[in-house]
Amino acid sequence: MTFFSLAFWIALQTAITPGAAGHTWRLAHSSAILEQFTEFLSIPNVATDKANIARNADWIAGQLKSHGVNVRLLESPGAPPVVYGELSTPGARQTLVIYAHYDGQPVELAKWTRQAPFKPYITGDVSDPAHARIYARSASDDKGVIIAQLAALDALKSAGIALKSNLKFFYEGEEEQGSPHMEAILERYRDILSGDLWVFCDGPVHQSGRQQIVFGARGVTGFEITLYGPRRELHSGHYGNWAPNPAMELAQLLASMKDPNGHVTIDGFYDGITPLGDVEKRAIAAAPNIDATLKQEMGFGWSEGNGARLDELLQLPSLNVRGLLSSSVGATARNVIPSEATASIDIRLVKGLDAATQVDRVIAHIRKQGYFVSDRPPDDEMRRAHERIAYVNRKETGYNAQRTPMDLPIARQLIAAVQAARGEVVLLPTSGGSLPLIVFEKVLKAPVIVVPIANYDNNQHSHDENLRLQNLWDGIETMAAVFAM
Amino acid sequence: MTFFSLAFWIALQTAITPGAAGHTWRLAHSSAILEQFTEFLSIPNVATDKANIARNADWIAGQLKSHGVNVRLLESPGAPPVVYGELSTPGARQTLVIYAHYDGQPVELAKWTRQAPFKPYITGDVSDPAHARIYARSASDDKGVIIAQLAALDALKSAGIALKSNLKFFYEGEEEQGSPHMEAILERYRDILSGDLWVFCDGPVHQSGRQQIVFGARGVTGFEITLYGPRRELHSGHYGNWAPNPAMELAQLLASMKDPNGHVTIDGFYDGITPLGDVEKRAIAAAPNIDATLKQEMGFGWSEGNGARLDELLQLPSLNVRGLLSSSVGATARNVIPSEATASIDIRLVKGLDAATQVDRVIAHIRKQGYFVSDRPPDDEMRRAHERIAYVNRKETGYNAQRTPMDLPIARQLIAAVQAARGEVVLLPTSGGSLPLIVFEKVLKAPVIVVPIANYDNNQHSHDENLRLQNLWDGIETMAAVFAM
Repeated sequence: MTFFSLAFWIALQTAITPGAAGHTWRLAHSSAILEQFTEFLSIPNVATDKANIARNADWIAGQLKSHGVNVRLLESPGAPPVVYGELSTPGARQTLVIYAHYDGQPVELAKWTRQAPFKPYITGDVSDPAHARIYARSASDDKGVIIAQLAALDALKSAGIALKSNLKFFYEGEEEQGSPHMEAILERYRDILSGDLWVFCDGPVHQSGRQQIVFGARGVTGFEITLYGPRRELHSGHYGNWAPNPAMELAQLLASMKDPNGHVTIDGFYDGITPLGDVEKRAIAAAPNIDATLKQEMGFGWSEGNGARLDELLQLPSLNVRGLLSSSVGATARNVIPSEATASIDIRLVKGLDAATQVDRVIAHIRKQGYFVSDRPPDDEMRRAHERIAYVNRKETGYNAQRTPMDLPIARQLIAAVQAARGEVVLLPTSGGSLPLIVFEKVLKAPVIVVPIANYDNNQHSHDENLRLQNLWDGIETMAAVFAM
Repeated sequence: MTFFSLAFWIALQTAITPGAAGHTWRLAHSSAILEQFTEFLSIPNVATDKANIARNADWIAGQLKSHGVNVRLLESPGAPPVVYGELSTPGARQTLVIYAHYDGQPVELAKWTRQAPFKPYITGDVSDPAHARIYARSASDDKGVIIAQLAALDALKSAGIALKSNLKFFYEGEEEQGSPHMEAILERYRDILSGDLWVFCDGPVHQSGRQQIVFGARGVTGFEITLYGPRRELHSGHYGNWAPNPAMELAQLLASMKDPNGHVTIDGFYDGITPLGDVEKRAIAAAPNIDATLKQEMGFGWSEGNGARLDELLQLPSLNVRGLLSSSVGATARNVIPSEATASIDIRLVKGLDAATQVDRVIAHIRKQGYFVSDRPPDDEMRRAHERIAYVNRKETGYNAQRTPMDLPIARQLIAAVQAARGEVVLLPTSGGSLPLIVFEKVLKAPVIVVPIANYDNNQHSHDENLRLQNLWDGIETMAAVFAM
C-alpha cells in the first residue's frame, strides 16, 4: 500500500471511463469545440463543388494530423479524395475502421429560413443543449460526428485512457452522390482497409432520443411505371366511357400491388428473406415504442401493417409510391382522358432479397394483370401489337441490404462499450433507410455496424439541416467509448 | 297551260331544293365566302378580351342587317352582348331559333404550328375541299357555322326559295367561359326568345364524316379528391411500410370506383336514368360503327364497356379521372412518402341524373371506404379526430343533361329536311360532350336539337383549331335546309 500515493489511490478508485472522459472534456472545452465545428461547417461541401470539397478534405486531414493520426488521401479517378487515417496501438487486440462522409446534399438557398447553409448559426441557449441546435448543411449529416470524433480523441488522451484497438478513419467525399466510386476505391485500397469491424457513423439515433446501434440497413432500388391510353389527350365527353383511361388503369394496377393494410400482394415479394434471430427479435421488442408520438407529430391517425410497430415493419421489404402524375389537377385540370399516367416507386430490401429480382417480381405481377411490359415508351407498332402497355423504366440499379448478426463477439463488445458510456441503448437489426453497407461487407469481408449520433428530426437532405447540441455532446461520449473498446 | 311561259315551266320541273340552292351558291361564291370567313376569323375572340368581343358582335350584327335581319344586342350586366336577330315570315308555320357562339377558347400562342390563331390560313387545295382546311381559333367552334348560315340565307334568297318559318338568331359571346349569364339573359328576354325549336349549331359531325343530328347532350360536373398522409413528406426508408401513403390510398380508392371494364361500381351511379325509347335505340344501332378506325387512329387496342360501341356508351353517365398528382415523378422523384395525393375527376350525366346528386353518390362511396369527407383541407384538429381524411373540392357545379325525343313532330320535320339536303344522316340521342342545353329547355320550354357542321378532328379548344373546307360547304347546304323547313 505504501507504494501508492493518496492521489493515485483516489484516481484508481474513480477510474474514469471513456464516456466520462468525453463528458469532462466537453464541459471544459465546449466553446472551442463549437468554434471548430463552425469553421468546418463554413466550408461549402456540395459534392460537385470540387474546389471546396478539396478544402474540406484538407481541413480534416490537418485535424487528424494534429491529433497524431497518420493521414493520406485515397484517390480514384473522378472521385473526391477519401481522407484516410491510421492510429496504431501497440499490441492492439483488433482494428476498427471508422466511417463518415464529409460531403453534403445540394442546397436550395431560397428555402433556408435564416442564413445561408454555410453560415452556421445556433438557436437556443448553449447552456441548455437539449433545446439548442446548430443549423448548417451537414451539421448532422455527417460533419457533426467528425467533430465528435476529434473531441473524443482529445478526451481519451486528456484522461490518459489508452486505446486497445488500432483505429482507422475513412472519410468519404461523395456519399450524397450515391458513392459511385466506392467499390473501385475499396478494391484499390483493399489491403490497407482491412479491419475487424467497420463502424458507420451516419444517420440518426432512435426517435425516442436514445442512442441506437444499428446492425444493417435496408437496400433500395426504384423504377417508374407508365401506362398509355389514347395517343393524345381526348375530350372526356366525346370519348369518356369508351377510350381507356391510363390514370384509372394505373390506380387499378397499383391497388393490385398492396392490400389495405400495406401488405404487398405481389407474388414472391417476401420470399427469400433471411429471418431475424431471437436476439434481433428481442432487441426490437425492447426498443421504446414511440409510434403514437410520431403519428401525433406527423399528423396521421393510422398506420400500415395491421397494428405492427414501425421498428418491426422496417425489418420487411417495402413498396412505396413516391409520386404520381397524369395530365393535370387543380387550376390546370381539363376535361380530358389523359394520354399517359406514371407512378414512381421505390422498393426497400432486407437481407436475403436482391434488388433486380425484386423489380422482376413487380414486372411479373404487371404482366399477370394483362400488360405487355416494355423497356421503352411505345411506338405505333407496339401500340398496334398490344392492347395494354406498361413502360417500366428501371434505370436505377440500387443495391441490396446488409445485416450483421447482433451476437457476433465484436458486436457484443461494441454494444457493451456504448452501453457503458450511454446507458440503455436501442438495438435495431436494420435501419429503415438505406446505406450501401453491402459493398463494404462484400469487398472487405468485414462486419459493418452503424453508430449514429444525430437527432432524428435533423432535416438532413433538406433546408434548415440541424444538429441538436445535446446530440453532439452525447456523440463525443459515444465515440470515445467506441474508440476505447 | 297557256298561262305559263316556257322558262317558268322548266323552273317548276327542276324546282331547286334548299340543299341544291346552297350547293349552287357556294360553287359560284366560294372565294367571297372564304374572304368573309377570313375577315371574321381575324377578329380575336377570347371571351376576356372585351374590346374584340364587341368587335365580333358588331361584325355579326352588320352581316345580319345586310341580309335583311332585324338585329338587336341583348345585354346583361357583365356579359358580352348576345347578337339577336329576327327574320319574320308572313304566315309562318313555326319559329326556329338558331344558336351559335362567337367567342373562342383562350389560345396558347407558342403551340400553334404556323401563324398566330387570328391570322387564318388554308392548307391544301381549295379545289379539293375534302383535303383542304382553314386554320384559326374558332374556325370550327363556332365561327364556321355562322359563315355557313349567312351563305345559306344568300343561297335561299338567290334561288327564290321562300321561308316557311320565322327565324330567330341567337349568337352568344361567352360560351367558352361556361355561359355564366345565360340563365339571366334567357329569363330577361324570355318573351322575344319564344320559339318552337332551338337549333344548336355547335360541335362536330359524326366521326364517320356523316352529317349528324343530336337530340341532347350529356351534362357535366367535376370535383377533386385529395387524400392525406404525413403532414410533411417523409423519408421512405425510415417510415415506408408504416406511415400511410396517400398515393397508394388514392389508387385503392379510385380502383374501388370502377371495374376493369369501366363499369362504375359506386352505389346508385346508374339509378334514375331516363331510358332510351325504341326510336333512339334503333338510331344508335343504325349509326356507322367507326370504333375500330378510331382506335387505330388514337393508338389504343381495347375499350371500356365490355365490347359495347362508343355511340352506345355515350348514352350512359361516366366517371373520368382527368388528372393525378402526388409528389414527383421522373427526374424530380425523391424517395419520400408523399404528404398528399389528388385526383381530378369529371362526371358526365345523362337524362334523369342530377349533377349534385351524382357527386353526393361519389362522396357516399368515399365515406363507405372509411374516409371522413371534408370540404376543406384538414387542420391539426381534423387530423387528430379522423384516421382517414378525404378533402372533396366540389366548387364546380356543372349542369344536367338534356334530351329531346326523336319522334316529336318538329324533330321528324328537321330530320326530313336535313336528310333531303344531305342524304343519310346519323341520329344520336345524346352527344358525349356537354352543352348547357338544359337551361334553354328549362327557361324557354322549347325543345333543343343540335345540328353541327364541323369535322370531328377539328382541334377545338386546342392549338391548330381548324375546319375542313368540305364541312363548311356541306354546312351551307345543311343550314339552308334547316332554314327552309
